Amino acid sequence: MTFKYKNVYINETGTVVGPLEKKGPLNHYFDKSHDEFYLGTKTWEQAETKLIEDAVDITLSKLGKNRFDMDLFVSGDLLNQIVASNYAASTLNIPYLGIYNACATSVEGLIIASNMIEAGQVKHCLCAASSHNNAAEKQFRYPVEYGGPKPKTTTFTTTGAAVAYLTYNKKGIKIESATIGKVIDMGIKDAYQMGAVMAPAAADTIFRHLQDTKREPDYYDLIVTGDLGSVGKEILVDYMYTEYGIELNHYDDTAAMIFDLNCESVYSGGSGPACAPLVTYGYLFHQMHKKKLKRILLVATGALMSTTMVNQKLSIPAIAHAISLEVVE
Amino acid sequence: MTFKYKNVYINETGTVVGPLEKKGPLNHYFDKSHDEFYLGTKTWEQAETKLIEDAVDITLSKLGKNRFDMDLFVSGDLLNQIVASNYAASTLNIPYLGIYNACATSVEGLIIASNMIEAGQVKHCLCAASSHNNAAEKQFRYPVEYGGPKPKTTTFTTTGAAVAYLTYNKKGIKIESATIGKVIDMGIKDAYQMGAVMAPAAADTIFRHLQDTKREPDYYDLIVTGDLGSVGKEILVDYMYTEYGIELNHYDDTAAMIFDLNCESVYSGGSGPACAPLVTYGYLFHQMHKKKLKRILLVATGALMSTTMVNQKLSIPAIAHAISLEVVE
Repeated sequence: MTFKYKNVYINETGTVVGPLEKKGPLNHYFDKSHDEFYLGTKTWEQAETKLIEDAVDITLSKLGKNRFDMDLFVSGDLLNQIVASNYAASTLNIPYLGIYNACATSVEGLIIASNMIEAGQVKHCLCAASSHNNAAEKQFRYPVEYGGPKPKTTTFTTTGAAVAYLTYNKKGIKIESATIGKVIDMGIKDAYQMGAVMAPAAADTIFRHLQDTKREPDYYDLIVTGDLGSVGKEILVDYMYTEYGIELNHYDDTAAMIFDLNCESVYSGGSGPACAPLVTYGYLFHQMHKKKLKRILLVATGALMSTTMVNQKLSIPAIAHAISLEVVE
Repeated sequence: MTFKYKNVYINETGTVVGPLEKKGPLNHYFDKSHDEFYLGTKTWEQAETKLIEDAVDITLSKLGKNRFDMDLFVSGDLLNQIVASNYAASTLNIPYLGIYNACATSVEGLIIASNMIEAGQVKHCLCAASSHNNAAEKQFRYPVEYGGPKPKTTTFTTTGAAVAYLTYNKKGIKIESATIGKVIDMGIKDAYQMGAVMAPAAADTIFRHLQDTKREPDYYDLIVTGDLGSVGKEILVDYMYTEYGIELNHYDDTAAMIFDLNCESVYSGGSGPACAPLVTYGYLFHQMHKKKLKRILLVATGALMSTTMVNQKLSIPAIAHAISLEVVE
């Protein structure tokens, strides 16, 4: 399922990050960074809502627009019932579609919005995705105060929110095409091996995208997944070659970019719905505007993990959505 | 945000329900009903996935099609990380968009799919929504074995799944227009008062729909919300009149239709993402095919409730999405 677009552009973005992302190598590409995890709220969950609200405000302020100019708000996050997005939508009062595909949520939202803009159904749309390390750890694993050791294959949930303003106005970054992912379950049950869980889903989507568009991987200056991590990234390159005979020469993963991987506490890199769009809207769009990269295939990968199903000894399904981005000449 | 459609039709549906819905007054309108809550699986969550898979199979079988004929699967449910949908998507292997707007999920999915079909981007789409009483009770309240008493304003989560096959082929029920909801939070913190939480969101969406389409309420043979319950239903009628001066004469609520309300254990009626589409695809579509109802406005309402946020003493936001349905002459 690959869509082609002629009139969809990301005119502006807003990116807000937490303390560890601030210490990372990409900090100066983000619009705003915080030194602590609460952002003036009393709980991590409410802080995550604040991250989205801040990223929306920054986007609108850069645009010189306000929320009443927006037709639609599409958002999702990792929290149960996607509450960070729901509460942000509650203060925004823009027609809202809540979505969930784990860490593939950002691109899922871009695809839904792009289809509506291409068709002229919607003119001004904000797409958001967020995650908060402490809120996610508390919900999916252990409270961070517990300080439990983890295997090196673990990824570290990014704290941040990324917002994109999509419209038909030819400016910024063009969304050229998109491929909706299928859910792939390879039978892996280890919740500390998310790279391995998601790599086959990424491979399937990249393969189908290239097939549908009749393109070679080198058509793109960069194919970038998010978030397989430093371990999953290698699995994807191997798997893509052995299963599909496709060599990924210009390839990277946002999980391996957002943090300084020598910092042991982030294990094999970032994760969370915010990671891929933060790196893309921050660092990669900067590279595109400088014409160092002209065409990117962004492949957001999501492990559709739930503690309930992991406790029931089920394997973890995964999905990946791809979107082709081009700099407007 | 109201969309108008010319070429979107629900050609076929599939409905599967659990034991209490089977005892209810609408049972003979559903395709399949179960006598127990496990459906041959070991857990309620896995049973919920089975409900979706069954409803998909029934829909495809009635159509004489198979899953490879489908371009897209849009689904959501109440479980954390919408796992019932994710695991169903995993066995289906159709490109998948996971969505969440609580009990407004069914219509959210119909809107996303309708926009894509209207634009010619997608030709064959399955939209699903599910809920499972025991799984929902365990997650949001107490294990059912606990047997705790509840106030009469409580609604009872429906066990079932409803699937609609959407396409451009003029047959069955036409989706004529749709209005995306805004998130409304009136400050209510009582998780046993969902009707009161959601009624203002329903009112806002109905008002905007009528305004955008320049219609009077009586344009519709029936305006039907789902799921406000017997208490929330009265709140909506009052609120609609006092706040907007609009009288709802031909109005009902699916929560008040699916169960026998004299059966005390269902309190003020049904709820859950499955309730509204089950009643609509089952009973109401039957009435439409018999030409007893020609035009319906289905308004699915969702309380964007999370135990985490309720425990943090936050109020509960709500949303309602509306879709206008017409019988094909």
